[in-house]
Formats: sequence, structure tokens, C-alpha cells
Amino acid sequence: MARAVVLVSGGLDSATVLAIARSEGWQCHALSVDYGQRHRAELDAAARVARALGAVEHRVVSVGLSDFGGSALTDPGIAVPTAPSAGIPVTYVPARNTVMLALALAHAEVIGADALFTGANAVDYSGYPDCRPEFLAAFERLANLATKRAVEGSPIAVKAPLVALSKARIVRRGLDLGVDFSLTVSCYAADGQGRACGECDACRLRREGFAAAGVPDPTRYAPQPAPAHMGIAP
Amino acid sequence: MARAVVLVSGGLDSATVLAIARSEGWQCHALSVDYGQRHRAELDAAARVARALGAVEHRVVSVGLSDFGGSALTDPGIAVPTAPSAGIPVTYVPARNTVMLALALAHAEVIGADALFTGANAVDYSGYPDCRPEFLAAFERLANLATKRAVEGSPIAVKAPLVALSKARIVRRGLDLGVDFSLTVSCYAADGQGRACGECDACRLRREGFAAAGVPDPTRYAPQPAPAHMGIAP
Repeated sequence: MARAVVLVSGGLDSATVLAIARSEGWQCHALSVDYGQRHRAELDAAARVARALGAVEHRVVSVGLSDFGGSALTDPGIAVPTAPSAGIPVTYVPARNTVMLALALAHAEVIGADALFTGANAVDYSGYPDCRPEFLAAFERLANLATKRAVEGSPIAVKAPLVALSKARIVRRGLDLGVDFSLTVSCYAADGQGRACGECDACRLRREGFAAAGVPDPTRYAPQPAPAHMGIAP
Repeated sequence: MARAVVLVSGGLDSATVLAIARSEGWQCHALSVDYGQRHRAELDAAARVARALGAVEHRVVSVGLSDFGGSALTDPGIAVPTAPSAGIPVTYVPARNTVMLALALAHAEVIGADALFTGANAVDYSGYPDCRPEFLAAFERLANLATKRAVEGSPIAVKAPLVALSKARIVRRGLDLGVDFSLTVSCYAADGQGRACGECDACRLRREGFAAAGVPDPTRYAPQPAPAHMGIAP
């Protein structure tokens, strides 16, 4: 059975990607990247997802991206926004997908995998440049120049089966393949128990995806604080 | 002054690259990558080199490549060879330059650097696929699709000023720019004091470089163990 490295973040998209890769017959080596993200609960979710969806292994590789800062996801001094913004948002982590794919490539070369799977998505996405098809094509080209196996005639494919799907179609695809989305954590500000804030971009896109797919949202949300105006007499 | 991220390993090549970048007027942010290499002394050398050659900062970012194994440089179970081998040697670290350049790109984006400098060299090299000009060109293309700054119209250049130079020419270039090569450590099996084994590919290429340049070799070599045949009567 051919091997693939599947980047599994713990979120909805990469769980669906893992299910797709398994359904295509790949022996899946799940890889998560601990880059210092504040939403640590997603790494626990990644382990649950990898186990539930039949990955033959799950590894977590650490990389000190948070030392560089520059993102609301890695720098405690930058708040996660609770409303959509124009342009590329502050939750963008500089070069994150380049770093993650590079790590997946390293793992793939060591274990002799023929493909890398990523949940990158360019439709209902948050405006990240490194989720676009042209970025992914450029990475595949790089991968096939970078590696010993490529020099020796064994190419590596970069597969992003969700890249052109709406969040609703991703939800439906995952459900068709038996993904239990209650195991996943998408929220940028998930609490220690993996409960979602319900307000960040990732929560918004996820909630809209379930709604558009016409299925119940299984997300566990953290209790909301009472709004500040409550209790103020009119 | 325009900023550049310079990958500084602690070896001869990257020291020369840092000197070149400084001579071109860049404000240099030195970056070293702790990927679990067994030759830890090179990270100490990197700090010395960065200081001596006027980098404005020196950072070490950690990444768990050694968790993947697959190389004599990261896996204690694979010996560093003491004789040249055919093909790509076991000192090749899968996807190392892809990972290092990805990390340099992340740092560059956060600090607003316009260039990444690498000591990659495709002449007197050890057969690594990720030191070739076509790899570097593909990474530059990727970098300019991957990043927020590129999307917003500020390209990033990937500069490998040594890529076409012989080791002898690199030595002469470095000396012309005042590099003190006694600060550098190239050896794959350097001891805790940074003393070179004198036998690995990196030592051989370095020694031949000084010889071909016609200058004394300032490398500190570890005392050699007595050869096994000594003391055996003829």
C-alpha cells in the first residue's frame, strides 16, 4: 500500500482530508506541527482524529515559529479578532504552510511516502496566501527538486483535495466518509478543553459551513460571558 | 538600510555569505537552525561568526527534524562516513534546506526583510539535491507566492552568492572580506570543543579548499587516535 503523509491540524478540513486519503487506499502517516499555537487543544484533537480515522501513526513535530511572532495565533500580545477584517488577517502565521509542507516533505522522504496531503482551501478561507492553488503547485515543483528520491526518479505529489470546495461541501464530503466532526477543533481561541469561542474567523466559517450543508453543528462552544450591556436599565 | 535574513550554520560557507551580505550593505539578521544535528558545536560557531561579522541579531530556531531520522547528521544510529561515497551520501538530511529556507522566510516576513541569503553551493558540494540552482530558483518562486508581503507587492529575493563558486574561491572571497575562518566549524562530527575529525566529507572539502586557495588551514583538528595497525610487529 502506498504511503502518504497527511498534515492533520485537528480541525474540520484536515480530518476530511485524512478520510479522503484513507478512502483512496493510502497508508496514512498523520503529522501535526506544534508551532507554538495558542490553541493547544487542536493538537489533542489531531491525535483523536488520527486514531479515529485509521492513520497508521500520528507524530507531532515541534518548530519554534512562535519565537518569530507576527501573528495572533502565536503572539499573546496580538488578540484574535472577533469580526472579519479586510485583507489578510492578523491570524495569518508567516510562512506557516511553507514550513508545514517542508516538514511533511522531510517526513515523507524518510518513510518513502509518495504523497503529501494538506487541507489547504482557497474558497471559504481566511485570505491566506499560502492556501492558493498556485502556491501548492509551486510547492510540489519545489518538492521534486529538493529531495533525493526525486533526483532518483520517484516524484512526490502534493494533494489538496479540498482546495476548490466550499466549507459546506467539505462538511458533506466528511460526513459521507464517516468523519465525526465533534472530535475536531477549528477555533483559533479554543479553551483548554477544546471548546470553541464561537466568534473568530475559524468559528464563523465552520458554523456557516454546517448551516449551509444543512446539518447540525456538533461543535462544543464555551459558555458565553454575559454581554456588557445586560443589567443596565433602559 | 534594507534587511536580510542570513542563514548562518557556523561553517565556512555561510560565514562568507554573511560577509558578502554585509559588504553589499544589508542589515543582516543571522538565523541558525537547531534541527537536532549531532555536531552541536556548529551552533556555538554560528553565534561567534554572527557577532564577528556584524549581524544585528542572531537567532536560533529549533525544529524537530531529528525526530524523523534518516540521516547520519541527526540519527546516532547512522555513522558519519569517513570516505567519499557514490551518489547522495547518508549525511544528506531529508528536506533540510527546504525547511531552513521556510524558517528564514517566516522570519523575513515578520521583520520585513527583502532577501534571504543561503550558503548553498553546487560545485564542491556533497551531492545534495537541495543545493542546486534550480532548487533555489524554485524556492524563490514559492516564497513570492507564499507570503502576505508578496501578495501585497513586495517580493523577496533568495540569494546564494556561493552557488557557482569552488571551495577555493569561497575561501579567497571570505579572506578578502576579512572572515576569520578559525571561528567556523564545518565538520559533521566535530567534538564538543568544535574540533574537527579531519575525515568526513565536510572536513575533506574544507581542507582541499584551503589547499587549493594556497592559504594555511586554520581548522582546529581533534587529536587523531593511533591507527589500529600501529604497534603490530611486521
